[in-house]
Amino acid sequence: MRDPERTRASILGAAFDEIYHRGFHDTSVNEIVGKTTLTKGAFFHYFSTKNDLGYAIADEVLKEMVLERWIRPLAAYKNPVQGIISRFRKIIESTPDEHMALGCPLNNLTQEMSSVDPVFREKLRAVMQLWISETEKYLTKAREQGYLKPDVNPRQVAEFVVMVEEGAFAMVKNLRDKKVYWSLYGSLKGYLESISQKPTEQLSA
Amino acid sequence: MRDPERTRASILGAAFDEIYHRGFHDTSVNEIVGKTTLTKGAFFHYFSTKNDLGYAIADEVLKEMVLERWIRPLAAYKNPVQGIISRFRKIIESTPDEHMALGCPLNNLTQEMSSVDPVFREKLRAVMQLWISETEKYLTKAREQGYLKPDVNPRQVAEFVVMVEEGAFAMVKNLRDKKVYWSLYGSLKGYLESISQKPTEQLSA
Repeated sequence: MRDPERTRASILGAAFDEIYHRGFHDTSVNEIVGKTTLTKGAFFHYFSTKNDLGYAIADEVLKEMVLERWIRPLAAYKNPVQGIISRFRKIIESTPDEHMALGCPLNNLTQEMSSVDPVFREKLRAVMQLWISETEKYLTKAREQGYLKPDVNPRQVAEFVVMVEEGAFAMVKNLRDKKVYWSLYGSLKGYLESISQKPTEQLSA
Repeated sequence: MRDPERTRASILGAAFDEIYHRGFHDTSVNEIVGKTTLTKGAFFHYFSTKNDLGYAIADEVLKEMVLERWIRPLAAYKNPVQGIISRFRKIIESTPDEHMALGCPLNNLTQEMSSVDPVFREKLRAVMQLWISETEKYLTKAREQGYLKPDVNPRQVAEFVVMVEEGAFAMVKNLRDKKVYWSLYGSLKGYLESISQKPTEQLSA
């Protein structure tokens, strides 16, 4: 007997991968089903349309990816600002060249679907809002703990940081040059240090 | 009798507009021809394929747009750093809401075409390289004239500035919230001031 939750997760995983490589439009339900051990009938038991599957990818896969890659690791740092800098560095180091050419899954899906489908647009917007709000929480904490200058606006910095995290992937996808990542990393680090209150090296956990 | 250069420019203008609104794939040659006073036969005299037309948009329309919007106006500023800040502000102010929902034409075309067609990818990459290199020239000048701290790397700052200029449009397209532009503008301004050598208000032309 199948475990429905596990089956659902395996469909989402296969679908995410196909869509990330080929785009939402160019990926068919048949191709997604072919990547699983299910029949097409069983697939439709889980997702009644391809769009429903796309929405679930935004609601479940992309939100989880954002939290797992960018947010949860910040809890391990005494100084959250240092955490944001370190996370960006580690993500650059661990991104395979293939993914660099493919870009950021959230940005790709937004570019492809947000002007076509308003439901998709809302769901993709919610992913980015979550990313910003969770980053903001850590920046608010950093300011409270004295790591950021008192006049810093955590929301404004969170919007800028997430824009850089996203925009860096888009630019590297365009230029196909990993060195640009490190250049952008250096600038983000310099920016965050310029709004920090004490030298970061004294503050890292 | 027709003026061939003007006809060519009118095709490029009509095609750019259609593609900006609907994407490259979803725009047909018939629709572009329909926006001009030409026959389809006359159209093919200028561009033998739809791809050739797309390449000409990158080489001619997008490069010209980058120079016209972001680069040439910088010549009017005594302090180029102040020029970059002012240009960003003016472009936010003058961007119609419709274009905010559509995003940046270069970013859209790159997202759509760079993984599909290597010639397109090279041409779109060249547009971004031009944007970075021209920004770098002004930043080098700013450093020579003492507006930037001596340890500033103009290439690194240029890559960051262009990434912010592009990334801001992508984020606003996703969030559909013009306030975010001003938040990002404030952060870019703060960043550029943090690497400047004297208070910018004393230096503006």
